[in-house]
Amino acid sequence: MGSTFGRLFRVTTWGESHGGGVGVVIDGCPPLLAIDEREIQAELDRRRPGASRLASQRKERDRVRIFSGVFEGKTLGTPILLFVANEDARPEDYEAMRDLYRPSHADFTYEAKYGIRDWQGGGRASARETVGRVAAGVLARKLLAKECEAEIVAYVRSIHTLEASIDPERVRIADVEKSPVRCPDPKASRKMVDLVRKAKKEGDSLGGVVECLARKVPAGLGEPVFDKLEADLAKAFLSIPATKGFEIGSGFEGTRLKGSEHNDPFTMREGRIRTATNRSGGIQGGISNGETIVARIAFKPTATIAKMQETVSRDGKITRIRPRGRHDPCVLPRAVPVVEAMATLVLADHLLRQKAIRGR
Amino acid sequence: MGSTFGRLFRVTTWGESHGGGVGVVIDGCPPLLAIDEREIQAELDRRRPGASRLASQRKERDRVRIFSGVFEGKTLGTPILLFVANEDARPEDYEAMRDLYRPSHADFTYEAKYGIRDWQGGGRASARETVGRVAAGVLARKLLAKECEAEIVAYVRSIHTLEASIDPERVRIADVEKSPVRCPDPKASRKMVDLVRKAKKEGDSLGGVVECLARKVPAGLGEPVFDKLEADLAKAFLSIPATKGFEIGSGFEGTRLKGSEHNDPFTMREGRIRTATNRSGGIQGGISNGETIVARIAFKPTATIAKMQETVSRDGKITRIRPRGRHDPCVLPRAVPVVEAMATLVLADHLLRQKAIRGR
Amino acid sequence: MGSTFGRLFRVTTWGESHGGGVGVVIDGCPPLLAIDEREIQAELDRRRPGASRLASQRKERDRVRIFSGVFEGKTLGTPILLFVANEDARPEDYEAMRDLYRPSHADFTYEAKYGIRDWQGGGRASARETVGRVAAGVLARKLLAKECEAEIVAYVRSIHTLEASIDPERVRIADVEKSPVRCPDPKASRKMVDLVRKAKKEGDSLGGVVECLARKVPAGLGEPVFDKLEADLAKAFLSIPATKGFEIGSGFEGTRLKGSEHNDPFTMREGRIRTATNRSGGIQGGISNGETIVARIAFKPTATIAKMQETVSRDGKITRIRPRGRHDPCVLPRAVPVVEAMATLVLADHLLRQKAIRGR
Amino acid sequence: MGSTFGRLFRVTTWGESHGGGVGVVIDGCPPLLAIDEREIQAELDRRRPGASRLASQRKERDRVRIFSGVFEGKTLGTPILLFVANEDARPEDYEAMRDLYRPSHADFTYEAKYGIRDWQGGGRASARETVGRVAAGVLARKLLAKECEAEIVAYVRSIHTLEASIDPERVRIADVEKSPVRCPDPKASRKMVDLVRKAKKEGDSLGGVVECLARKVPAGLGEPVFDKLEADLAKAFLSIPATKGFEIGSGFEGTRLKGSEHNDPFTMREGRIRTATNRSGGIQGGISNGETIVARIAFKPTATIAKMQETVSRDGKITRIRPRGRHDPCVLPRAVPVVEAMATLVLADHLLRQKAIRGR
Repeated sequence: MGSTFGRLFRVTTWGESHGGGVGVVIDGCPPLLAIDEREIQAELDRRRPGASRLASQRKERDRVRIFSGVFEGKTLGTPILLFVANEDARPEDYEAMRDLYRPSHADFTYEAKYGIRDWQGGGRASARETVGRVAAGVLARKLLAKECEAEIVAYVRSIHTLEASIDPERVRIADVEKSPVRCPDPKASRKMVDLVRKAKKEGDSLGGVVECLARKVPAGLGEPVFDKLEADLAKAFLSIPATKGFEIGSGFEGTRLKGSEHNDPFTMREGRIRTATNRSGGIQGGISNGETIVARIAFKPTATIAKMQETVSRDGKITRIRPRGRHDPCVLPRAVPVVEAMATLVLADHLLRQKAIRGR
Repeated sequence: MGSTFGRLFRVTTWGESHGGGVGVVIDGCPPLLAIDEREIQAELDRRRPGASRLASQRKERDRVRIFSGVFEGKTLGTPILLFVANEDARPEDYEAMRDLYRPSHADFTYEAKYGIRDWQGGGRASARETVGRVAAGVLARKLLAKECEAEIVAYVRSIHTLEASIDPERVRIADVEKSPVRCPDPKASRKMVDLVRKAKKEGDSLGGVVECLARKVPAGLGEPVFDKLEADLAKAFLSIPATKGFEIGSGFEGTRLKGSEHNDPFTMREGRIRTATNRSGGIQGGISNGETIVARIAFKPTATIAKMQETVSRDGKITRIRPRGRHDPCVLPRAVPVVEAMATLVLADHLLRQKAIRGR
Repeated sequence: MGSTFGRLFRVTTWGESHGGGVGVVIDGCPPLLAIDEREIQAELDRRRPGASRLASQRKERDRVRIFSGVFEGKTLGTPILLFVANEDARPEDYEAMRDLYRPSHADFTYEAKYGIRDWQGGGRASARETVGRVAAGVLARKLLAKECEAEIVAYVRSIHTLEASIDPERVRIADVEKSPVRCPDPKASRKMVDLVRKAKKEGDSLGGVVECLARKVPAGLGEPVFDKLEADLAKAFLSIPATKGFEIGSGFEGTRLKGSEHNDPFTMREGRIRTATNRSGGIQGGISNGETIVARIAFKPTATIAKMQETVSRDGKITRIRPRGRHDPCVLPRAVPVVEAMATLVLADHLLRQKAIRGR
Repeated sequence: MGSTFGRLFRVTTWGESHGGGVGVVIDGCPPLLAIDEREIQAELDRRRPGASRLASQRKERDRVRIFSGVFEGKTLGTPILLFVANEDARPEDYEAMRDLYRPSHADFTYEAKYGIRDWQGGGRASARETVGRVAAGVLARKLLAKECEAEIVAYVRSIHTLEASIDPERVRIADVEKSPVRCPDPKASRKMVDLVRKAKKEGDSLGGVVECLARKVPAGLGEPVFDKLEADLAKAFLSIPATKGFEIGSGFEGTRLKGSEHNDPFTMREGRIRTATNRSGGIQGGISNGETIVARIAFKPTATIAKMQETVSRDGKITRIRPRGRHDPCVLPRAVPVVEAMATLVLADHLLRQKAIRGR
């Protein structure tokens, strides 16, 4: 269970890192959206490892195929199966982990839950599962583009203790993509590259913060009470592997302000009702207000490191482990398209929900 | 939509702050749990305003009634309707807000979404909606108590810039309840009381951070991928009014550690596999590992303040507003039982999901 | 579980026949529908027992109250709680059934499922639960009236072996309501009244068939595969107590035709594409085609009869029982508004689903 | 939407008859069930066309592959992707149907719904979609076999006007499989074969009734109100292409009995509480009572016939059509494994739901 996301724009991902493949079924995607495999491929390439020396050296080609739901270049309204074969599995890398639990991985908890685990890789806990999310996100983005002008941009805000200086209102995807660490502050970007290289050399890993913006989202998306827009975003982002925190708008820093400092006064701008400031982060009472949605997501340092660590075996013997396998010293640059995909899925779903009750 | 939470232990809250009443339907609560109205009442009294000079002066008696699903003191397994009448509404307080949008409230967004809003109070965005959550949480806690030893405790970690010093492993609910601000650090508690009083006098408001613990949760709860335990907790907490952030385990601070510092080594303790540290916050790969679950939730300063603020009217005229109504200068003490209720609902739901696939 | 119906227009009924009351929460009803309690009351009065000598003599006044979700006579878009108190319970009638299972009732199965049952009446299995469905149906009908011209009419097609002669294209609700057994064929109606009276005198009960029409349903409602319109109707109708069968269009009789006799040729009529015949019953491939939807539902004879019957006690002793309680010798006339309500709920839900993907 | 079935044992089918393939994702299948591709293949072979001269001559090999969720021969508890490539598509057969609507097919309604349709075959309305259901049913059957002794058997009860004589308590799958039309009454079977051959020669088609039994289902499965076991079965069966009706237990015939004739008296047998008769069809109040569940499903004559028929084109011109393509003159024999699969999916889902609240 738990592999389906969304109420109307519903995605179900499937696949382990070392089985036959990974992918997604999208059920509820409206008909008549133009799509081809190359557009999905382009986005998958953004999350692909091995794109730079910084990332994991797995040589996954991640070739996506559309197996259903698209006809003559357009969505049919029926389920879309997107499929990516696993090509570069090396189970022998994992042989040693058969009976050991890697620290801060999901090995122990999967076994506690299911009484069985796929020890040839991370199983469903592998970041490879996010291939399906990114692929589905391309369709969701198509839907948003057709129905409104919303644009979603994410980027690396900080790595380890190094924080970039970024103006959310001006960032463009192109600025993000120029940076090998997906940080649109060129100076910080260079330093981050050095940090990650150093960590790699040390066999260590780094975490950081990704910021995600959604501009020009129409007012009215999100539901009162449990399906608040920020609640669904929080769930979406915390479902990404290695995440440890979420903020919307002012976030934890906002708790240090007084109400008179924190409230966003209303005003008129460009002929419509706007807020003068945006500490709300584009959402009030769980519903979008038309301002830019601003969220931040904390990623822990990658659990897989090339250092010797203490652990126990399945039968309870204390021992040590130095995991093999090819892994990123810092997942943040590759996490950026995943964060964008999840934000896009949430917005597409809520857009359809709002259309159901109000039409267009 | 959006008023239902949970897959198997499902709660649906209903009611506006100024209509006939508020409450909840619980569908999926297992049979044969002993319950009476007084137990639910006791928990509702914890979130009731007016309990101290610090909180809102609304005199809601919040008398709960069980209208269905309980027979001879035991749950039947069928839907339980819990009902609390609204008794102390003063719509005249809100008359002035009929055509104005209160800053950082949901007035504007509800109207953008629905084309109509209940201006006599906050409607569904009112914190009064949480009555249903707290009431349902009592049943969820009963279920947990029957099935495992899990105990859920929340408390105020910080108000404004003042942070308490608390050892999560030792906090008891009794320590929390002794403090008028629900902060188990007596020294910090006294200062917090002063802070809140001062804010009230100034017509201003304060935010802060609530920490929530779940101890002795069995390993194996939570689902891979989208319904990770931390993802469902994040959604649950971000669905509480006035929340702006969520952390699990090491949270945002954890992003400043290296992998070698952040990983939780496995070890043996009390005859079973444990982690030596708990930066994971009791969850690995979305699934509980048997360690204490530790989460933190950021609450913004209450939007309702007694100060003059800029706003616009429904027809787009710039104007000023000083909202009337009786409101808390700081919602955190009252938010504590709501946070506990949401954590309990998430755990009860995942416990049932796990029973479905593994039995007991 | 299992008390919620619908994906977007979602109703959750609650309440036992002998607890505090029964009712429904509707979540997902669009905003701005005009509604007042009297309209709901009028529909509840149609299903009320005691309206004629034919029906059960319970004196339920069934006064409905709207507790939330409606403001100044219009729906808010938020959950609507409709509440009907139980006023005429006589638990003493049921005292004898405390330890006995009534034949063809749900006493035994509820106890097998839950290990507990509300023996003071039928609990959730009581037809009284349908109060919530009928009340919710009024809102669903409002929605349909706003969005399209669909009209739903049900009536009694047969009682016991007596079948009425009815032209589905001409039946009007007024014709149905004129008959005390809700059969629009006046001659058959008179005979049915006699049949029911005779059965009552004998302490016996009768079943029959209700036919339900939905005219002017727009083409395009219903989803491929599992949520076919006829599949959701079948579920809706089979969820009504005492139902044993469902047919759409040609039904079981259609299995005796050849394809060349059964197919509905397409033709042009009134300037649009129509079918020349309607053996499909208004649905093809799970999706409405704009023709009249025609369904039939089989109701068994009421299980409660005033005759001595063999049964066993909870501890497995063979014994006899003659149930007390006030019950209908024939539920069909009262089932008609319930059937209409369920059809309306299905269509309202699918209308919203279609709006989500295509707009209006 | 609408391609997902089940609450806990959830299947999502995908694929059109003439795209890359068809299949299913199963999410919620418990871990540790032994499974291999050959077992699934064996069941798919039962529904495969071309097995006899009676059925369609499409040469689909229908080779199933497991792409995820199974490791070392056991289910992992994570999503299982089952995939069958489309190998024998002949789109040219359908070229003529590009702008014509085949009578009693879904061509017109899909286009009304989506504004687009895959005219190269039936798209999602094709019976080929049921490959995914049958494949998923194998896993569901494994689960049932592990948890209880339930056995599900379906067979052809009637074709056209010819009804077989069958004792539901004695039928074995082996008896069914011996018959080329899957009718366990050898005499009727021979006549049915003749009937189908004759219809084929005439370019016509036949319908009929499939009966489905579920023996030794534990008491207590099914939920009150909307998710009654018979309601979920009705939905499951009516979601199968070409179905027009459903009966449980006494069905429509039962409406012609009086209550005193219809009620099932309780008695003791084999040391437990049983019913003396089984007009209830194994379900009372929506919940299984431990007796054999007996359901019947009406299938219309196949819509595709080799006769000239009247229809209209997309632009509203009246014309004639004689569809090409290879189709069964009678779908019933092939529908039998599909009916079994759907019954098995419903029971597996309700078994997990019951485990969630009561354990084992």
